[in-house]
Amino acid sequence: MSRIRIYNARLLTMADGFDVIENGVLTTDDERISYAGAASGEPQGVKYDREIDAKGNLLMPGFKNAHTHSGMTFLRSYADDLPLDRWLNEAIFPREAKLSGDGIYWSTKLAVMEYLTSGITACFDMYLQPYPIAKATEECGFRCVQVGSMNNFSQSLELQEEWYNELNGKNPLTSYMFGYHAEYTCSKELLEGLSELSHKYKAPVWGHNSETAFEVDGCKERYGITPTEFTESLGLYEYGGGGYHCVYLSDNDMEIFKKHGLCVVTNPGSNTKLASGIAPISTYLKKNIGLAIGTDGPASNNCLDMFREMFLVTGLAKLNDKDASSVDGNDVLYMATVGGAKAMGLDDCDVLAKGKYADLVMIDMMKPEMQPVNNITKNLVYSGSKADVKMTMVAGKILYEDGNFNIGESPDTIINEVNKLIGEMRDI
Amino acid sequence: MSRIRIYNARLLTMADGFDVIENGVLTTDDERISYAGAASGEPQGVKYDREIDAKGNLLMPGFKNAHTHSGMTFLRSYADDLPLDRWLNEAIFPREAKLSGDGIYWSTKLAVMEYLTSGITACFDMYLQPYPIAKATEECGFRCVQVGSMNNFSQSLELQEEWYNELNGKNPLTSYMFGYHAEYTCSKELLEGLSELSHKYKAPVWGHNSETAFEVDGCKERYGITPTEFTESLGLYEYGGGGYHCVYLSDNDMEIFKKHGLCVVTNPGSNTKLASGIAPISTYLKKNIGLAIGTDGPASNNCLDMFREMFLVTGLAKLNDKDASSVDGNDVLYMATVGGAKAMGLDDCDVLAKGKYADLVMIDMMKPEMQPVNNITKNLVYSGSKADVKMTMVAGKILYEDGNFNIGESPDTIINEVNKLIGEMRDI
Repeated sequence: MSRIRIYNARLLTMADGFDVIENGVLTTDDERISYAGAASGEPQGVKYDREIDAKGNLLMPGFKNAHTHSGMTFLRSYADDLPLDRWLNEAIFPREAKLSGDGIYWSTKLAVMEYLTSGITACFDMYLQPYPIAKATEECGFRCVQVGSMNNFSQSLELQEEWYNELNGKNPLTSYMFGYHAEYTCSKELLEGLSELSHKYKAPVWGHNSETAFEVDGCKERYGITPTEFTESLGLYEYGGGGYHCVYLSDNDMEIFKKHGLCVVTNPGSNTKLASGIAPISTYLKKNIGLAIGTDGPASNNCLDMFREMFLVTGLAKLNDKDASSVDGNDVLYMATVGGAKAMGLDDCDVLAKGKYADLVMIDMMKPEMQPVNNITKNLVYSGSKADVKMTMVAGKILYEDGNFNIGESPDTIINEVNKLIGEMRDI
Repeated sequence: MSRIRIYNARLLTMADGFDVIENGVLTTDDERISYAGAASGEPQGVKYDREIDAKGNLLMPGFKNAHTHSGMTFLRSYADDLPLDRWLNEAIFPREAKLSGDGIYWSTKLAVMEYLTSGITACFDMYLQPYPIAKATEECGFRCVQVGSMNNFSQSLELQEEWYNELNGKNPLTSYMFGYHAEYTCSKELLEGLSELSHKYKAPVWGHNSETAFEVDGCKERYGITPTEFTESLGLYEYGGGGYHCVYLSDNDMEIFKKHGLCVVTNPGSNTKLASGIAPISTYLKKNIGLAIGTDGPASNNCLDMFREMFLVTGLAKLNDKDASSVDGNDVLYMATVGGAKAMGLDDCDVLAKGKYADLVMIDMMKPEMQPVNNITKNLVYSGSKADVKMTMVAGKILYEDGNFNIGESPDTIINEVNKLIGEMRDI
């Protein structure tokens, strides 16, 4: 059990809007926050294991990367600038087919390193095998919500149920949700089975949804309706959930999202690099549809950087809407933090307040791009970068500080293992 | 006079494509490179003032920020998420009207800090008064090419001629080019006068060009032709030059660019945040029009980060062209380095080779986003960030290293002065 006190901090709790408390204090008691507020209200007489002078730097909730495939770091920049079909069929699929659990484990650890440098304290991970991912993230002390990637070729209803029971309720850093890869990779029977599972456990369901126009057209040809309409018709969303990407939702799709309280996880970096299109974020905002932000995987983005994603969310909306006032920066900051926590079922990791998990970031306010201090929250969205992340804490434990990692494994080992992994399959 | 030797480096000279030399050495002799190549070919028997073990990190040419307004850092995040006209008329113009030379000086120094953290070794700066900018950049040891911003309201032909003579040929870090703010802010007579100056000195001319559709429409109403056609008709481009932004060039405009060897400086961050549009970069590339990249000013971008710009150049092209293979990452890296040097007349700052100025960057290859090593140049464009810049050298002098600045002034002082500046005019 460890108690940490951080003082002289600017404090963006996000518990009540976007105001920043000057001269704030945050204290932890083991994995949770015991106080977050003005120095004047700080409880007295507590002994701490470590006291940190924040020197005016900013404490804020950690970013939530609400859609990713961490195990794909080994394929980063393996094949860029290819058309989508060649990229998938020539570069990605043949190598994923050879990927072992051990490879997923090391690739995930490399992703965790990058998450921490970008102020990300939790990820919503969809990949091939959940146990190596849980092992990797738990060993690092990192929070990970996994989601099924069931399709006609891998995973199954039986496995999802096993994983759901094995990965929930055991380690507070780890949880698991039901999910399907996408409508176009799943038979109707498989999705019906998933709907049954969802009803049995009263649990939400997630999947890739309307990432490309091609995908939506294909579903309409198969079933005469959109992917959202089709999956809803099978009862998949009775207990909520949502969709990743959602670049091409129809008006009726949006009504379905509202009706079931579904969340859109937008992935602008990936949608840009793969030329998929621009999601209509301002429309989702106006309709009060829940929004979160994900980096998608490192093979399609290629970085796992919430700062780049935040700029893209508002920037692409501005371009799309031909309106420089579209999608306010503060709305984006909310999506990247509280919105992500809501999507991922991390109700105790959303804001900085007593009793919440101490999942937080310290931003270096003396970096030139954070100056002058005109508007801190807008600066984070429009000018912030990985370089501004001074410290990242998950569940009360400092995992990254001033460029150094505290994740139970040397960065050199992780980097060597991932290079070995791709080295062995580069020429297959 | 100082001699530095950097060994154990990966070397991306860009003198001959995008190949990376493993186990490379780079040496400097005062402000120029004395050797850049494989360790095996290194000259022997030279004494150095400092030897640096690069430990496998990457040395590459510094980025050239080919369009910016450095003196505007004081307005960063002063007013985001406003429509363009309100942003300009309510937030920017009233405060620029109160800006002193001293304010420009400190704001420029803050910009230089950010350039160095982003691996930028030279900027192409267009702003209100050139002497405070030259003073600030020279004191920092930073390279700056200034360009006139003449318009109907400020600067003049006489001043441009004075500045041209005063700021060229005195300090190798500083140079000056003729420029007009934009067609829509200049009378025909003023531009004709600039054309005469250009002919007198056989010098290129630059200006904002076709940044918005509104601007192009306005010019067509005034003169029946596009801004490019109009300015060319006045003889402005007899000795080359180019345009900033160039979001809306017509086919004939592009022919004019080709005919005179003009360069397009694209500013995707600013064009995105201000909802101006997406420049047709793939078309410019196919037509072999020279390309460089700028951040634009810190009030409209808001960060001065060449990594974000590089991703946007290719990403927005991919979206615009609906083609994930559009605008190869290596082409973007060329624009951000060699292309910028060409645009700015910095023929001796383009690549890493003997006799060139030692304007270079060391990239930290052990950052997670630079791993695994599948394709270093693509990684820089798709995954790189400010956080990866380990060292920035201009004219043989290390100005930034491991987070510390060596610019003759304490960062605290610069930051305090810029906060004081905006503090005094926040409520005007």
